[in-house]
Amino acid sequence: MKTIHAGLIGFGVIGSGVVRILEESRELIARRLGAELRLKKIADLDIETDRGVPVSREQLTTNVNDILEDPEIDIVIELIGGYEPARSFVLKALENGKHVVSANKALLSKHGDEVFASAEEKNLTVGFEASVGGAIPIIRSIREAFAANPITLIEGIVNGTANYILSRMSDGSCDFDSALREAQEKGFAEADPTFDIEGIDSAHKIAILTSLAFGTSVDVDRILVEGISTIGLEDIQSAADLGFRIKLLAISKFDGESVDVRVHPAMLPNDHPMASINGVLNAVRICDPWMQENVLVGHGAGSLPTGSAVVGDVIEIARGILSGSSGRVAPRSFPQKFRRDIPLRDRDDITSAYFLRVKVNDQPGVLSTLSGILGSHAISIESVLQKERCAKGRGVPLMIMTHTAKERDMRHALQKISELECVDENPVLIRVEK
Amino acid sequence: MKTIHAGLIGFGVIGSGVVRILEESRELIARRLGAELRLKKIADLDIETDRGVPVSREQLTTNVNDILEDPEIDIVIELIGGYEPARSFVLKALENGKHVVSANKALLSKHGDEVFASAEEKNLTVGFEASVGGAIPIIRSIREAFAANPITLIEGIVNGTANYILSRMSDGSCDFDSALREAQEKGFAEADPTFDIEGIDSAHKIAILTSLAFGTSVDVDRILVEGISTIGLEDIQSAADLGFRIKLLAISKFDGESVDVRVHPAMLPNDHPMASINGVLNAVRICDPWMQENVLVGHGAGSLPTGSAVVGDVIEIARGILSGSSGRVAPRSFPQKFRRDIPLRDRDDITSAYFLRVKVNDQPGVLSTLSGILGSHAISIESVLQKERCAKGRGVPLMIMTHTAKERDMRHALQKISELECVDENPVLIRVEK
Repeated sequence: MKTIHAGLIGFGVIGSGVVRILEESRELIARRLGAELRLKKIADLDIETDRGVPVSREQLTTNVNDILEDPEIDIVIELIGGYEPARSFVLKALENGKHVVSANKALLSKHGDEVFASAEEKNLTVGFEASVGGAIPIIRSIREAFAANPITLIEGIVNGTANYILSRMSDGSCDFDSALREAQEKGFAEADPTFDIEGIDSAHKIAILTSLAFGTSVDVDRILVEGISTIGLEDIQSAADLGFRIKLLAISKFDGESVDVRVHPAMLPNDHPMASINGVLNAVRICDPWMQENVLVGHGAGSLPTGSAVVGDVIEIARGILSGSSGRVAPRSFPQKFRRDIPLRDRDDITSAYFLRVKVNDQPGVLSTLSGILGSHAISIESVLQKERCAKGRGVPLMIMTHTAKERDMRHALQKISELECVDENPVLIRVEK
Repeated sequence: MKTIHAGLIGFGVIGSGVVRILEESRELIARRLGAELRLKKIADLDIETDRGVPVSREQLTTNVNDILEDPEIDIVIELIGGYEPARSFVLKALENGKHVVSANKALLSKHGDEVFASAEEKNLTVGFEASVGGAIPIIRSIREAFAANPITLIEGIVNGTANYILSRMSDGSCDFDSALREAQEKGFAEADPTFDIEGIDSAHKIAILTSLAFGTSVDVDRILVEGISTIGLEDIQSAADLGFRIKLLAISKFDGESVDVRVHPAMLPNDHPMASINGVLNAVRICDPWMQENVLVGHGAGSLPTGSAVVGDVIEIARGILSGSSGRVAPRSFPQKFRRDIPLRDRDDITSAYFLRVKVNDQPGVLSTLSGILGSHAISIESVLQKERCAKGRGVPLMIMTHTAKERDMRHALQKISELECVDENPVLIRVEK
């Protein structure tokens, strides 16, 4: 039986999962592949810590070139994350004629053009199924299964940490801080959770999916990104009262002219396919005129789910090597020369329905003033909800649900509203997806 | 730009969808593929009826050999369904060196060994994504994305007709007959719905998934198959009272020794991932120790959803042709020589929890008699529910939920129960999946 050799850079949480899966699924993989898959080398700065998985001393190295320059190694697995030195390692691997598997969404969303152009030029494969949605086969599905589908919408819950926090706030009535603490205690959130709760991680992921689905590159730094740290328990409860749940949603829409890409908390009606995706689960929904919709749900993070997506990519590449078919599919679905620049829709031109929470002094005429401001900006109100009155002088939350309006108009109206004397603190705005 | 030629056999509902998608997605497909995909010929016995899609007179033929023997045609799409002449056409296409795409679950579940052996021998591809779950990318996911995953469970709602009927009974309180009539009026059920409502179509599909996931062939005729025609409105309502929904479930479990493959109505707790899959939607859930679970949801039938899965397969094959990589992946994930015989678990050895509806004469001691019979067969009761008393002498439904028991024991107990004088009609048995 032939042997295909891989090298692993980064022996962290996912790296350990990959080692364990390659070991424990060894026979199964050999039967499906018709060849042995062998992890020849593992490079990490720390080769002393016991990761609880079986590795021999000779497999470990602190010198990444033991992998990048080993002619026997065909596939390099990059799992160190971040921009550098990951970018240099990946480019060098490609330069040396090695296929690459990576779970690095930051790298691929930011430097994808460089990495994928290099891969295509050398007829090499870059597998990155694990970079979005962990074990959910979304990259592969867009690239292959939906190759005939003119996709119009991708929407995803692609960050397990944020989804866990929102689910706990919703089901357990924890406030944001205690839900975050709980997530950290359970290992679902990192010590510094900024990327997860501020939507940056989700932005990286939706940029990658956009690139695959529409054949265009988007500048991650220009995407509208809002996190969940401003969401209060009262928003979650008001949403529930109105028959909605709040989710951190990554959205990419294509109308044939521009792409509308954004990440923000969104209110979803209870019967929306994404509304019941709770806890650390991720989900991606893809719509087009042919298949209507497909929703893929699974574990979007964690050593073994993400590790198994990495190994799935390694097996795909190994099958390609064995059948002499490198470069069968362009990594981002469209070959370089058929990609094109599609403009990112200006955030002012986005349209959405909105939920607005304003803390006002409970005095006569407030609602009339607010609705007057909204009306003068062409925003019509669908419903208003006012919670219990508090002691005189203290702020009372007023919740307003609007019909579809333009983001620019809403921004201007919000500016005016927050300047009102009767408004206590900055209004909270949540977009509504129906 | 290079052109790849395909031929279509069967210009019915799905065939028309394929023609429309190839036409309307022409430019998109060319951009993703880097080549033109051209439908050179369409063979059907009826080439007169207008299918509402653009075809030229020269494309149409009543002679299938115009496709099977055309050296320019690389890919044959078989969409006539059924065993013969589909089997002969597919085998002849392979014999003539053509790749095949088929949505024919009956053919592939029954004659898969013959078809796939022939394909592998000639290094040709057989695409059959459309045969299970329509637009849901389940075949491809098992074959590629989950290639490292030791799958333990597949469970699916894979028949839209049956799911529509059960959903209408559940939400609209229709009885079975009117829900079926409604499905037929809306075009969701065929004039003869036997295959759909009796679970045969689902059995074909779970046999195909079993073959892919576990690398073994199962004899469809030996699978335990029960349909939904015995499900009464009272079962649906009792299930709801207990916090369950009833779904026609196709199940395949592998414990390392035998496969437990079956199709039957199943009671699922409301929070089960499959319980909220309603209407004509299909869903497949795959479990394994690495990724834990993945649930894929989409439209499992219909001209365009199924048609787009067919075209997705055609594109995959075309990509293979263009990159010279035929035979990259064994069609059923495991190459022939690594497949093996895994015994089908005897249906008597299946274990399950059960829901039992017995119509009894409402007289003292009935429950004690029933529970005595169950107890003497090692079946313990979890809960009992008795609906309103009727006029004396008429049957009263008694609902019993059991703990996990062996199918053999339940069968024997049921036999005894149905022989009781106090039992009015044959008891209804529904398996409970938790």
